[in-house]
Order: sequence, then C-alpha cells, then structure tokens
Amino acid sequence: MGDKTDSRHFETVYADHAATTPMHPKVLETMTQMLENMYGNPSSLHCQGQQAKRMLIRSREMIASCIEAHPREITFTSGGSEAINQALRTAAYLGASKGKHHVVASRIEHHAVLNTLKLLEKMNCRVTFLDVPANGIVRPQDVAAAIREDTALVCVMHANNEIGTLQPVEEIGQMCREKQVLLLVDAVQSVGHIPVSVRDISASFLVFSAHKFGGPKGAGVLYTRAGIEPVPLIAGGGQERGLRAGTENLPAIAGMARALEIAVDEMTVNQKRVTALRDRLIAGLETIPQNVLNGDRQSRLPGIANFFFPGVDAETLLILLDNDGISASSGAACSAGAAMPSHVLTAIGLTPQQARSSLRFSLGPENTAEEMEYIVTRVKTHVETLRKRS
Amino acid sequence: MGDKTDSRHFETVYADHAATTPMHPKVLETMTQMLENMYGNPSSLHCQGQQAKRMLIRSREMIASCIEAHPREITFTSGGSEAINQALRTAAYLGASKGKHHVVASRIEHHAVLNTLKLLEKMNCRVTFLDVPANGIVRPQDVAAAIREDTALVCVMHANNEIGTLQPVEEIGQMCREKQVLLLVDAVQSVGHIPVSVRDISASFLVFSAHKFGGPKGAGVLYTRAGIEPVPLIAGGGQERGLRAGTENLPAIAGMARALEIAVDEMTVNQKRVTALRDRLIAGLETIPQNVLNGDRQSRLPGIANFFFPGVDAETLLILLDNDGISASSGAACSAGAAMPSHVLTAIGLTPQQARSSLRFSLGPENTAEEMEYIVTRVKTHVETLRKRS
Repeated sequence: MGDKTDSRHFETVYADHAATTPMHPKVLETMTQMLENMYGNPSSLHCQGQQAKRMLIRSREMIASCIEAHPREITFTSGGSEAINQALRTAAYLGASKGKHHVVASRIEHHAVLNTLKLLEKMNCRVTFLDVPANGIVRPQDVAAAIREDTALVCVMHANNEIGTLQPVEEIGQMCREKQVLLLVDAVQSVGHIPVSVRDISASFLVFSAHKFGGPKGAGVLYTRAGIEPVPLIAGGGQERGLRAGTENLPAIAGMARALEIAVDEMTVNQKRVTALRDRLIAGLETIPQNVLNGDRQSRLPGIANFFFPGVDAETLLILLDNDGISASSGAACSAGAAMPSHVLTAIGLTPQQARSSLRFSLGPENTAEEMEYIVTRVKTHVETLRKRS
Repeated sequence: MGDKTDSRHFETVYADHAATTPMHPKVLETMTQMLENMYGNPSSLHCQGQQAKRMLIRSREMIASCIEAHPREITFTSGGSEAINQALRTAAYLGASKGKHHVVASRIEHHAVLNTLKLLEKMNCRVTFLDVPANGIVRPQDVAAAIREDTALVCVMHANNEIGTLQPVEEIGQMCREKQVLLLVDAVQSVGHIPVSVRDISASFLVFSAHKFGGPKGAGVLYTRAGIEPVPLIAGGGQERGLRAGTENLPAIAGMARALEIAVDEMTVNQKRVTALRDRLIAGLETIPQNVLNGDRQSRLPGIANFFFPGVDAETLLILLDNDGISASSGAACSAGAAMPSHVLTAIGLTPQQARSSLRFSLGPENTAEEMEYIVTRVKTHVETLRKRS
C-alpha cells in the first residue's frame, strides 16, 4: 500500500461493487450452515431431499416476493449471463413461432445481451441497435420508432453497469405491452440496490444475479411473466419445472434469497447512505480540473460514478490506485484487461481514447465517507502526476 | 426414526451418494474461507481480482492434473448438465460443419444426454440409440456397428448413475479415434471415485460435477481434448477464454479442485473400503429370497448397488426406509418423484413394473459396516411385510 503513515482507519477501499460485492456476513452464515448440513438433492424423496426441497420452495417464495412476482415466474440459473442467454433464446423462439425475427436493443446493453444477439443474428434474427444520447439514457421515442411489425423483442437494461444511468423501463414496458412486443430487462445492477417490482416494470423477462447484492456467486434469476414459458438452455433432468436441468445449487440459491431479503430490508437506509457517499465522491473528483462525470447526473444508481479524466490513461490510474489499496474499474469486469475501449462509453459519444481515460467507482454500504476523501486525494495526486508526464 | 431402542451409533444412514454427496469437511473449510475473503472478480485488474484470478488458474491446474489433462482443456461450468449440453451442442456444430448429422448413444445415458439429443433431433440430428444387454454394459461391437459415414459423435458414459456398471470407454475411445468420430464420456459418477485419465480414455469431451465427489454444488467441468474448441452455450463476457460467459463461481471452483485433490489422494483407500461395504450390503440383501442385483456383478462402481425386489413397490420401501433414517433412491434423483419407471432399468430388460420394484443404494467413504447391517435388517423386515400385504 502506498501511504501507510497517515491515520486511515482502513487498509483497502473496495470501490468495485458493480463487478462483484463482498458477501453479507449474514449470508455467509446462511451459506456455511447450508453447505455443512443441507446437502440433500431437492429431487430426492428421502428426508435430506425433502428438507432441501422445502428450502428451495422457501427461497423461491422469498425472491418472488422481493420483486412482487409469483414464485412460478422465477427460474433459478447459475447467474445473470445464463439467465440472459435463456431469455434471449426464448424470445427468439417465441418470436420465430409468430414469424417475428426482429429485435430492438440499446447499444449500452451488457455483453451477455450483445454477444448472444450476435449468435441469434447468425440464426435468422435481425437486430436494430439504438443509439443512446450523451446522458446515457435510452429515449423511449427511439424504442417506439424502432419497433416494427416483425419485432419480437426489445432489450433495455434497468441500470447500466458502467455508468450507472437508470433507463425508463417502466415507460418502455408500457409501450411494449401495448404493441405486444416482448421486453427483456437486465436488472443485474439494480435489484437489491433500488426498488424493482415487476408490477411497475412490465417486463416479459427480468434478470438478476446474487453476487451483485451481497449474495454468493453461482446463483441468478430468470423472471418470466406468467404466460411465458422459458425454453430450456440446459436440458436434462426435470428440475425447475423442466426449464433448467441440473442439481439445484441450493446453498447459493438460499444465500441469494437471504441476501435479497436483507438488501430489500436495508434498502431505504443504504440507498440514502450510498447516494451520499457517491455525491461526496463526485463533488470531490469534480474539484480536479477538466474531469467529466460520464452519464446523467440525476438519474443514476446510488453506487456508480464513472469519470472521464482527460489526459490520463485509466488503466495506469487503476494500477496506481490499486497500489494505494483502492479497487476501481476501467471497464466492465467481464472484459477488463481486454484492449477494447468500453462499448458503453463510445455509444454515448466518447472517443475510444476518451473511453480509455475513464474510470468507474462503484460503492457499497460498507464504504465510508473517510474512504471517499481518501479516493479523492489519491486520484488528485495521480492525475496531476500523470498529466505532467503526458 | 423407527427403532430408537437399539444400540446404533448413528441416527441416519445416507446411502444416496449417487444423487449428491455431503461435502468433505476440508472442502467446507476451503469454501468458507473463499466465500468470506476471496470475493474479487477474476476479471478485475485490482488486487482482489488478481488474487481471485490466481486461485482460478491454480484450481484449473489442480483439476487438469487429476485427470491428466492440460489446463487449457478444462472449461468450468455450473455443473454436469451444463457441461453435457455444451459438449453435445459443440459436437452437433462440428459435425454439421462436415456434413455429419448422426449421433450414436447408449440407451442408458443420463437424461442430460438423452433430453439434449431430443432437442438436437429437432435440429436435423439423427440419433441411433444402442440397446444394452442385461448386464448393463454397452457392447463395443454394437458401437462399431452403429457408426456410419455421417456419424459425428458417440455418447457412452463412464459409469451408469443408476446401476453403477462401468462401460468399456477405453475401447470405445480407441475405436472412435480410429474412425475419427467424436466421443462424449459422461464421467459424472466415476471422477473422484475410480481412476479417470484422459490419457487412457480418448474422449473428445469428458464431463464431471463437483457435488458427486464431496465438492460443492454449482461447479462442473467440460474437458475438451486439445484441438476441439467448445461452442459457447452461455455467451457474453470473455470468461473461460470466451467459451463460457458469466462471473466465475470461484468459491465453488476452488472447492471442486480441493475435493478432487482429496478424492484422488484418498482414492485407493476409499475404493477398497467402499467396495467392501457395497459387497457386504449386496451379500446381505441377497439373503432375502428372490432379490436380484441389477447390472453386472463385477464391473461396477465401488459405491452403487441397485436391487430388484420382486413384489415390492420401491417407492413405498423407500419411504419406510426413510422413516428408519435410511436414505436410498428409487431412480435418478433428477427424475425421482416422476411417475416414469427408470429408463436405465427398462433398457437392460426389466419390465416397467420390475423397474418400479427396484431400489438404489449408493455408498460413500463415511458409511460404515454397521450401517450396512442396519440397512439389510430394515430392508428384510419391510420386504417381508410388503410381500405379505401384496
């Protein structure tokens, strides 16, 4: 760590919650108990199996209730990417059965959406990608204009993973319902952080992942609105009503249910707290000359702030910060390390070079105001140094 | 529990290891540590990410080494079913690119194979299903006879999950290599229980799952022989060299590596020990009149014994045994509870009614000789009672 002589109360500052979150201590407790004692296969008829099955049912009810869905609308998957792949393949299948082969998707969707759409394009799907304005918010009128007679599906995420901007999915959902077009809402970044209800968002498919809200890796959810039957992506045994084969990862599923319950319980407090931290961080970083906050200032997740630091190579800054014990991100974790500039930042109008000068901080409830001050101080120092050098 | 006045040293007897195993205490330790401390996303560039990445690399090396593969031949999945689905889709894709649309599969494959083949049949694949003789062992000459000019793939599992019979996959592998046909070996029941090496078995694809050998649920492996590139089943981020998107479930992967290492270390001892328990159980159950051991007596996994109890409804017996604290299975866990008689038992010549009178006991290293005696005693009592009633 760089500067150990100060009076900091922490050794490291984890500001990469959009990549993955530390597990909530109570979730760790649940999972440890489950891993140790509840090893039964929920499909087995004996007591260990039935005990596991009851926990599976309870977890499904807990999770459904958190997003105001019916338990039957919940399919457990291994994570967000699997759920997105299954949703897209289902939509393509349902669309094809009605002769509809057109998909509308924003350019700022996650790679799980974009790369799966690339596969579907090879299989007779046509995709219209929506440009997104500089504020990082999809315009509902653009969605409306892109929907055609043969449109099967619209894909607009709830909150962007790189810049944190919230998308008008309620309005888009309304529109899709009226036009009888399916809607996939990737809610991986929003569920557990801000209120998400399938009563407010009329998504056909809504997807989220446990490890983004204090839950374990290895568990995600595919919500499908009643009346829509997901096409299996993984065929085999009859688990998940035949919609997703494979022995259920019950410890992770129960951990996800516990994590979501806690996140929903603590949401009001955490939302306020994390928003205050984020605003403090934004205010601090904006005292550095030329810095620009990427994406809309108001309509954003509590925890995400992405900055363009002109004249600074973000990856170098990232490494210097890491050396100070600060963890941030220079792109979506799934493609970090890749040489490509962020597709989200270039979609909202940054040049590839500007995108390579942008850094994301994503905060969680365990961060502190003191940590924000520390981030600001270290970033200031490094940005000055790097700019002098360049 | 039924009979609590005796001097048993146990409360329950778990004899359903083929469905899922309790986690090894050392694996629980590894996983708890990982869940608590190693939450970084392996794709992140900061210290938490890089620490996770190192653990991912190490886990891959450990697992590769256990089956004598190269780390690059290992793709981590969420489990056996996902790995099987990906292998089959890859084989279908590779076959189609050469104009080969034919698959040969034994009738005693797992549902993950059979049901995925059903999907592929809708997509231009033709499948020849091989009959299997009463001993439950596929005949290599039947495989040879079924292979045609347009055969892309052969599917023969290493050990059957219901009756435990070992299949001649070395010989079949040799044959497939000579005929340049791909081979999928479902080794879900064998890995960690008996020696499995991809040097001995020339499989193109070999699949296994952590929770079948003392590891956690939520982690599996798709081995693909060097030169074969799996087609992604889950598209998205660049994880697993672009072959399987989604944040890696590192705690489960590390747990799987630890479990396999332990299983391999303890294999010689456990194989001997579990085989002795199984033989004791078989000998005991064979003292009950009319009982028939399903599948070959010699060529079988150490832990599995499946019995046909004429005149007995297996599900009733299962419930009575459960009441005694004994957990067994009346079919593959993935379809237990389903009304269908076992496709494996009917394939080897049992009538549906005989199949419904069959019960599987699957043992693990923590079982004891005393437990075997208890199982035999209880089964005897119940079989007598049930036969009197029927």
